[in-house]
Amino acid sequence: MNFEEKTISKETIYEGKIINVEKHEVRLPNQKTAYREIVKHNGAVAICAVTPENEVILVKQYRKPLEQTLLEIPAGKLEPGEDRKEAAMRELEEETGYRTDRLDLIGEVYGTPGFADEKISIYFTDSLQKGTVHLDEDEFVEKVHFSMADVKNAVETHEIEDAKTLIAFQYLLLHYNHSK
Amino acid sequence: MNFEEKTISKETIYEGKIINVEKHEVRLPNQKTAYREIVKHNGAVAICAVTPENEVILVKQYRKPLEQTLLEIPAGKLEPGEDRKEAAMRELEEETGYRTDRLDLIGEVYGTPGFADEKISIYFTDSLQKGTVHLDEDEFVEKVHFSMADVKNAVETHEIEDAKTLIAFQYLLLHYNHSK
Repeated sequence: MNFEEKTISKETIYEGKIINVEKHEVRLPNQKTAYREIVKHNGAVAICAVTPENEVILVKQYRKPLEQTLLEIPAGKLEPGEDRKEAAMRELEEETGYRTDRLDLIGEVYGTPGFADEKISIYFTDSLQKGTVHLDEDEFVEKVHFSMADVKNAVETHEIEDAKTLIAFQYLLLHYNHSK
Repeated sequence: MNFEEKTISKETIYEGKIINVEKHEVRLPNQKTAYREIVKHNGAVAICAVTPENEVILVKQYRKPLEQTLLEIPAGKLEPGEDRKEAAMRELEEETGYRTDRLDLIGEVYGTPGFADEKISIYFTDSLQKGTVHLDEDEFVEKVHFSMADVKNAVETHEIEDAKTLIAFQYLLLHYNHSK
């Protein structure tokens, strides 16, 4: 079935630093028209990194849209045209001070496909070398390490409130060698 | 550490049907100021439903922000003030024609916490009774059933492009009794 919604006209609502917002008038499959509100975002990467001590590196940061701090795996926005794996390596080192040259793909997903086009690539690595922390000027994060027991407990108690982090934790429970 | 970002002033950029957009000037922990772009959304629910034939019910729908169809577990927006579990039961019946009176929480997560406050509650059920399909006027979806082997394969091949659906599939791989 072809459910494509063709744009009849579009309006730019907002052009910002991180997001743009558009409103499209679309033709539905039943030939009626409707409006779609669309948030454009350049995309993001996230890294589930396991240290030689068998701990997952997390960052706690204030998320203004939620007015609360959120516990997440390290992540960051893509620069225009930037390669996703290179961006993930850059973000990992900037936020945690660890370098890696090996990333396995966990998944590439849309977090809120109903209204936004942000795609996030989530990677796994347990091959880490010491690098240098370098945070952006307006980035304030606190590092937290979780053992594999903490990971299991956090998933079971629904403590994880961030989609990419829950995906990463489930991946660890499914695939990671806990006896290592 | 307290990383709270206090709003100094805010501007409403857009008030729409599904989203509102705001721009806040905030005071950072280092006393500098910055701008935060925020998308407000009422929240959503999603249901990972397994039929008596041991198949997961999925819906394929056109997602205008991505300009493509996406394979997802059934989901829908919350009405203002609506109870999340009741909303999930309503959406399940409207989109799939199945009713349930038992939902287990898989997780409650933010899909894109960097710029949006949408929280999605993801539920599991394998207790289904026949009800009545009733789609919204501008909703066009195709139902697809996945066997547990399809679920496993889709996760391994990174075929799932929707965050809530990947969370649901990994939950099935971790918890669901495949021999049932």
